[in-house]
Amino acid sequence: MKKTAGIIAEYNPIHRGHQYHIQQTRLLTQADYIIVAMSGDYVQRGTPAVFDKYHRTRMALLSGADLVVELPVCYATASAEYFALGGIWTLDSLGIVTDLCFGSESGDLASLLALAKLLSHEPEDYQTLLRACLKKGVSFPVARREALLSYINTYPDLPKSQWNKLLESPNNILGIEYLKALNRLHSSIHPHTVLRDGACYHETQLPDSSIFTSASALRRALADSAPFKQLAPYLPSDCRTYFQQILASGELLWTDDFSLLLHMRLIQENADSLTCYVDVTPELANRIENRKTEYRSFSQFTELLKTKELTHTRIQRALLHILLGITELSFPPYIRLLGVRKESRELLSLIQKHSSVPVCAGTGRALRDLPASSYGLIRQQLYPSELYQSVLSHKINAPYVPEHSRPLIVL
Amino acid sequence: MKKTAGIIAEYNPIHRGHQYHIQQTRLLTQADYIIVAMSGDYVQRGTPAVFDKYHRTRMALLSGADLVVELPVCYATASAEYFALGGIWTLDSLGIVTDLCFGSESGDLASLLALAKLLSHEPEDYQTLLRACLKKGVSFPVARREALLSYINTYPDLPKSQWNKLLESPNNILGIEYLKALNRLHSSIHPHTVLRDGACYHETQLPDSSIFTSASALRRALADSAPFKQLAPYLPSDCRTYFQQILASGELLWTDDFSLLLHMRLIQENADSLTCYVDVTPELANRIENRKTEYRSFSQFTELLKTKELTHTRIQRALLHILLGITELSFPPYIRLLGVRKESRELLSLIQKHSSVPVCAGTGRALRDLPASSYGLIRQQLYPSELYQSVLSHKINAPYVPEHSRPLIVL
Repeated sequence: MKKTAGIIAEYNPIHRGHQYHIQQTRLLTQADYIIVAMSGDYVQRGTPAVFDKYHRTRMALLSGADLVVELPVCYATASAEYFALGGIWTLDSLGIVTDLCFGSESGDLASLLALAKLLSHEPEDYQTLLRACLKKGVSFPVARREALLSYINTYPDLPKSQWNKLLESPNNILGIEYLKALNRLHSSIHPHTVLRDGACYHETQLPDSSIFTSASALRRALADSAPFKQLAPYLPSDCRTYFQQILASGELLWTDDFSLLLHMRLIQENADSLTCYVDVTPELANRIENRKTEYRSFSQFTELLKTKELTHTRIQRALLHILLGITELSFPPYIRLLGVRKESRELLSLIQKHSSVPVCAGTGRALRDLPASSYGLIRQQLYPSELYQSVLSHKINAPYVPEHSRPLIVL
Repeated sequence: MKKTAGIIAEYNPIHRGHQYHIQQTRLLTQADYIIVAMSGDYVQRGTPAVFDKYHRTRMALLSGADLVVELPVCYATASAEYFALGGIWTLDSLGIVTDLCFGSESGDLASLLALAKLLSHEPEDYQTLLRACLKKGVSFPVARREALLSYINTYPDLPKSQWNKLLESPNNILGIEYLKALNRLHSSIHPHTVLRDGACYHETQLPDSSIFTSASALRRALADSAPFKQLAPYLPSDCRTYFQQILASGELLWTDDFSLLLHMRLIQENADSLTCYVDVTPELANRIENRKTEYRSFSQFTELLKTKELTHTRIQRALLHILLGITELSFPPYIRLLGVRKESRELLSLIQKHSSVPVCAGTGRALRDLPASSYGLIRQQLYPSELYQSVLSHKINAPYVPEHSRPLIVL
């Protein structure tokens, strides 16, 4: 069997750091192929992706990926734990992925594995500490870090300072979740990690001294309508022409392009009915209901609802779930194949042979072949993409192309 | 008991013909008070009203109405028969309306009454003729006219040419429906009709030679951003300043301001689920489903779906019902009071005393006082107005003011 490495990513948008990660994955794992499980049209911070999944697939293939499949939307927009679970489930279900390679600020697999083990088992003492921290009214990530640090005061393997650093970095935390998910799904996929420059992640400005930057800094520049030549140095060179074409066509979406649609959804709901959406607790539902009349835009409303306990991302994600009608986290009845490189076409037949769930390119086929009982779950996958394309087509005044008539991208 | 005349109207927007009708109503019926049952934010042709119901209420009061109540939205946007039924129900339910005065191109109550009687009973011969006409694949109004004309060939009271003319004019047809509705609801309201210039109705240009024009011609001029001074001569003089203020604030809505929202609704539905909305036959549902991918805007899609049998208005209305979630025609559990003139305040207590259903000014009260079982019906009334205000607030970037915090307009 050939070696195939998996990567879980958003590429929102893709940059040279991502390309470097793909290259390092190939080196480190000696893989013949690299498969990317990529978020579709919405990402983990609870926003639409700046470019749609078709554009982002093309750029992933141009940057070194052999095949791109879509992360199920409910997981792609979930908290780190479920984002990771959805990603690992997707890669594992394909039946041919032998290795996983994720970026982390620590670059040290051993310590991440140790933490993953601890968090998988959650010893009772740790749980008690966690509950106590949560009671202080801080957000879950803060409480978890604090509880873990208290707990491992008695844990001899590493000095406290290093654990603290480990738990402060978002890619380490996600890495730990990938490792937990591999355990949980009893996956035989072998994990690796690539050292990633932690400073990049929180960057909001494009750096002068490096060709590496963060996706946030790129999005900020896009939002500010920065000229293409300012962005170009940070993009994988094979992507640049394509990226420039997208900019010229204006095919970018932002959270506030969905403001009116979210408002329409909110005025249809009440405090009771809101709680059926993923991430909407009764407390948040009441908060939404009580401040509904102050709604002006998606981003303004997110800011308005923010509290010490409810982070910006947490709220944004909940509002996105209301917009997209996401009421449950469950594995979909098929995996959506987005694109493949011509020279790696062999992967398609390998997947058809080994995957544990149907893998479909055209969703038209998925709708025809799957049992009628799957219809609701299929709609839950399709609707968010249809909505994205609808908003896009209205924004740039172009024809609407529905998900089911998008063919597999072959590059 | 005082004499109180009722008028059923849209005032989209109000013009001197409407004011003349109010004046004539007062003369003809010798009424102490005039109550207008006015469409809310959506009108019978299946579109949003160009100004919201609050602005239109103010202008109705400025033009001579003493009190304005809202036509329930499902009837305000229904075909002539149900529009009329909803209007008569509203006026009749108030318990104090003694007279009705509607405009008609014929101005001849006797012939309208004769036709209303015929259509109320629908003799078997007529029904047979109607079915035969419908089979030819023409629209319902055309088939009905043809069947009636064939039928009354043997009907001695009037020469055929006059009946033909009678049935060609929209206000005569609506008048006949008012008379049918009075029968159907066993109302004691006494009908009158005022002669109205039939030519006006189909006008699309503002006339040079008259101060009377149609609401369509005014809307056309508004859509073309005609300067206010071009519109002013056709408006009731007391309304002009207010009308000019609305224009300055940009608070106008058009069908295509709802394009994205309608698209969102359509992609959530399928041919099966669409049939639950009022006016959506299985045939139309299939047509919508099959051409969904060609959707660009509300108006473009209406044009696209048009056939010989399915008129523009019929489709527009069906699409509006999908947008607003209108799944049934039923009398609401309350009547919404929109505005009153200070000097006619006595009407409020009279209505509270005599009305057969609760009459509410603030809808907040309606939500509190009515039984929980009415909740769905109340939402069906509130949601369309909330949607209208949501679209308006996004369009002009102003705060959203929900229906329940709008007080009674007192002028």
